[in-house]
Amino acid sequence: MSDLNSRLTTLLPAWRWLRTYSPDKFKSDLLSALIVIAMLVPQGMAYAMLAGLPPIMGLYASILPMIIYAMAGSSPTLSIGPVAIISMMTFATLNPLFEVGSPVYIQAACLLAVMVGIISLLLGIFRFGFLIQLISHPVIKSFIIASALLIALGQFKFLVDVPLKANNIPEFVFSVWQYIRYSNSASLIFGLLALIFLIYLPKVLQSNAVQSRIGSTAFLTKALPLCLVVISIAAVYFLDLKAVGIKTVGEIPSGFPPLSMPYWNLDLVITLFPGAAMIAMISFVESLSIAQATALQQRSHLNSNQELVALGLSNLSAGLSSAFPVTGSLSRTVVNADAGAKTPLAGVISSLLIVVVSLYFTGFFRDLPLAILAATIIVSIWKLVDFKPFIETWRYSKADGIAMWITFFGVLCIDISTGLLLGIVSTFILLLWRISRPHIAVIGLVEGTQHFRNIQRHHVLTSNKVLSMRIDENLTFLNANTFKGFLINAMSQYADLEHVVINCSSISAIDLSALEMLEDLNAELNKLDIKLHFSEIKGPVMDKLRHSKLLNHLSGRIYLSHFQAMQELSPEVFLR
Amino acid sequence: MSDLNSRLTTLLPAWRWLRTYSPDKFKSDLLSALIVIAMLVPQGMAYAMLAGLPPIMGLYASILPMIIYAMAGSSPTLSIGPVAIISMMTFATLNPLFEVGSPVYIQAACLLAVMVGIISLLLGIFRFGFLIQLISHPVIKSFIIASALLIALGQFKFLVDVPLKANNIPEFVFSVWQYIRYSNSASLIFGLLALIFLIYLPKVLQSNAVQSRIGSTAFLTKALPLCLVVISIAAVYFLDLKAVGIKTVGEIPSGFPPLSMPYWNLDLVITLFPGAAMIAMISFVESLSIAQATALQQRSHLNSNQELVALGLSNLSAGLSSAFPVTGSLSRTVVNADAGAKTPLAGVISSLLIVVVSLYFTGFFRDLPLAILAATIIVSIWKLVDFKPFIETWRYSKADGIAMWITFFGVLCIDISTGLLLGIVSTFILLLWRISRPHIAVIGLVEGTQHFRNIQRHHVLTSNKVLSMRIDENLTFLNANTFKGFLINAMSQYADLEHVVINCSSISAIDLSALEMLEDLNAELNKLDIKLHFSEIKGPVMDKLRHSKLLNHLSGRIYLSHFQAMQELSPEVFLR
Repeated sequence: MSDLNSRLTTLLPAWRWLRTYSPDKFKSDLLSALIVIAMLVPQGMAYAMLAGLPPIMGLYASILPMIIYAMAGSSPTLSIGPVAIISMMTFATLNPLFEVGSPVYIQAACLLAVMVGIISLLLGIFRFGFLIQLISHPVIKSFIIASALLIALGQFKFLVDVPLKANNIPEFVFSVWQYIRYSNSASLIFGLLALIFLIYLPKVLQSNAVQSRIGSTAFLTKALPLCLVVISIAAVYFLDLKAVGIKTVGEIPSGFPPLSMPYWNLDLVITLFPGAAMIAMISFVESLSIAQATALQQRSHLNSNQELVALGLSNLSAGLSSAFPVTGSLSRTVVNADAGAKTPLAGVISSLLIVVVSLYFTGFFRDLPLAILAATIIVSIWKLVDFKPFIETWRYSKADGIAMWITFFGVLCIDISTGLLLGIVSTFILLLWRISRPHIAVIGLVEGTQHFRNIQRHHVLTSNKVLSMRIDENLTFLNANTFKGFLINAMSQYADLEHVVINCSSISAIDLSALEMLEDLNAELNKLDIKLHFSEIKGPVMDKLRHSKLLNHLSGRIYLSHFQAMQELSPEVFLR
Repeated sequence: MSDLNSRLTTLLPAWRWLRTYSPDKFKSDLLSALIVIAMLVPQGMAYAMLAGLPPIMGLYASILPMIIYAMAGSSPTLSIGPVAIISMMTFATLNPLFEVGSPVYIQAACLLAVMVGIISLLLGIFRFGFLIQLISHPVIKSFIIASALLIALGQFKFLVDVPLKANNIPEFVFSVWQYIRYSNSASLIFGLLALIFLIYLPKVLQSNAVQSRIGSTAFLTKALPLCLVVISIAAVYFLDLKAVGIKTVGEIPSGFPPLSMPYWNLDLVITLFPGAAMIAMISFVESLSIAQATALQQRSHLNSNQELVALGLSNLSAGLSSAFPVTGSLSRTVVNADAGAKTPLAGVISSLLIVVVSLYFTGFFRDLPLAILAATIIVSIWKLVDFKPFIETWRYSKADGIAMWITFFGVLCIDISTGLLLGIVSTFILLLWRISRPHIAVIGLVEGTQHFRNIQRHHVLTSNKVLSMRIDENLTFLNANTFKGFLINAMSQYADLEHVVINCSSISAIDLSALEMLEDLNAELNKLDIKLHFSEIKGPVMDKLRHSKLLNHLSGRIYLSHFQAMQELSPEVFLR
């Protein structure tokens, strides 16, 4: 029986929670679904607009993908759907190719979701989940901050109602200079009021004075964007604000999301591929951290490839149901968990509620002003813009700091994908650079102990017959020559040198270039009647060295400890 | 006084040997110069031909560069001049751009030498000598073997006297299929005789029977190519072999090498740049190993940037004196040292002798058959073609083996420069791949010792309250997630876990991504009431961690030794 269970769980991870479902759980799931939906409706429409798509697609993107993830994913609380960064990346991918909002543009957005889905699915099936590691944290952080800045800037066009461009900062500055005189002040005032509403009301609601009077305001705070939406629709409708030039969402088709394979051809697929690959990568980065937290809490085995499969299926279903690429949303997941969601059914319920909205309530949103959606995006995204990580990172590691700045300026000054790529490549180069400049030290004995330390940092005992060295990095082609050069230069200080002892305690791998360097070194030292010894070689390294010529030809010995080597090679140091 | 000496040595390394020169040394230098010259004259002409240039340029390339290196370089025996690989790379760079042997082609070859010189010079001055390390030994070896194969194949066109192409194997096979029926059998027979002469005569000369009768034949063996040259010229002249279609070198202009800046423009410089950079890199690789051996023998400080400057000046002088790119020749250096060269004056003498040859004896080479030069190249280069390194490398390290095969097929199937580039890039990728899959182990105590070992390899003591882990690699963005995933999965085996202890004895660096992973891990474990501890953190790592939040928020402790940690956290293991 438990064997059947474990098999079912592998095939359909949802089996884990389905078979123990109870009415109690349903009550908490329903409540959190209601709270999430209050966030999701305005967010979904806003993010669709961010991707350059009709708002209804933001609702579509929250239906099937959520149900599919509930069946195939491992986290009970992860809320999957439209997310700002991914929407922005979708826009950045499609904007140069098609007219924004045109039928081909919309079809291409669906195709992009299908491609992201297939790429994730294939990576998951062929166990390439580790590829996610190619992006370092500082690069992701910097990417998100810079993208958030661009996203926020990009929304100003809805506030001022002129066609500002914001693919990068220079473009934005130029288009502001070009168009700002044509801006619509009614729209701007309306938008600024919305911004003030979204920024100050939460602070008022969270103040002690208010909380002591009406109790917890957490839910109210979360529902503020929805309130703003309702208020602004009422304002447009009753005050006839369209007459002063306030642009609104307009007619939204109602009904189920149309299910169909988006139009595709090979050329289009090839053109979209780099963008799809980047989106797949970033969407995996975003949802994996949530899945990892879940696995730890449940003390369960985490299979990151299984997560990739779940994410792939969700995106595939998004593309086939007229939506655009999706991923796990950190903000909605936190709200979902806080509201007491017990199982993925919470997600399923909220997607069913979205179906109800898109069936019967789309007419309601006809008069929703675009400036309000823009304000929603600006406020939610602005929280991500934070320069503290830049300072902290720079303080901890210059290399990570450099990669961060490269990503930042790449995203802001070129475009979002090129910036990310530059950041990834720069981390590789900086890593190789660090490996090529290892820490190498001549070491000596700390008196009265068996420890050896850098002679330049500590007061230690040394012998003029024996040179002891340590390298704090694996020996590879990138540093073999540096090591040899360091050794040659260190040797020039010793007139009566008889032994060189290399401490290998920090070496976990020696590649062939380094091995040959050591063989040459051994041969060359041999000619000068100097013996080469090694100490503290690790087991796996020793296993590999046994296959090499080095050990057969070695003029000296292998010592288990460096202390033992020094005791034997230069006993006079111990007699002092 | 000694201060003046050391200053002079820095400015002009030649000062070191010039100030202690003696008649005795002159005698040995003169003798070895004579021996080297016997090799150099036919080699120089052959390598010029290999580069697609008039033979006289091979002589030019042996004059000024040698004198300049004697003044600026550090090795007393290094013989600088034309070298097969570099000539081949010159050909591969110029062949697609200009008609081989045309005046523009010749000018471009000189410009290439100037560019190689300037690149090396700049790299040396700005201390970029470490860049040489970007090429791993397996890649260099494979590159040399594959290039040698191509060089040897490329010479067949002179043996059969039809225009075979050999930029890569497919091209060669196709042109053989196309042209072989037009081959000249007289030329082929002549070439085969030369090959037999060069292959079998050394064996006969080195046999005991011959050596016992006429004494040491080492010099004679080295002078064999020159003998062959003399014999074949005589044969052509007296037997009138030109009548049967034997092609010869033809009229060679006599005189000093013309000194002038080769024709250049920006477009040409940009086109030649990638080739020049590769040639600079490979020529530095070739001569640095010789300089390193010298530095070790003399127990002197090695400054690889000084070597780059010397090589740069030599190439610059080559380009300005109507020659093509040069580097240190391993074979001639060995001969030079064996013959007893004491100082770089040996090189200077041989270059002066070359001047004599190019002034008065060029007419002598008019009747030298091209097939003979081709045979010389084939025999000297064929010694480099050896497949043992492929097997040995594969046995020691799969990653190095893969890089070797990629380089090999890249050179043979695409072209020499692309192959090298593919090889270099593949070593980077394979290195990153290895870093991303570190060796991680759950460890336990070896009974009766203070050592901890992998629980899967050894019989060790463990506690069900404490999980001990070790990672044998620096923690970076490439493996932080792998590590966390491994830990999460290992934890799923422990029901009553209270402590996790990470042994850091193999960690020499923790980048920001890994640091944040550890911070998250600490926070997440804390929620589960599990404490995180570290043991055996190295000094430099600890220095950096002090700047981080990790240590402030750490739920557990830092232990100096892992044994101490286990003694405190799970004393029951020690009571068993």
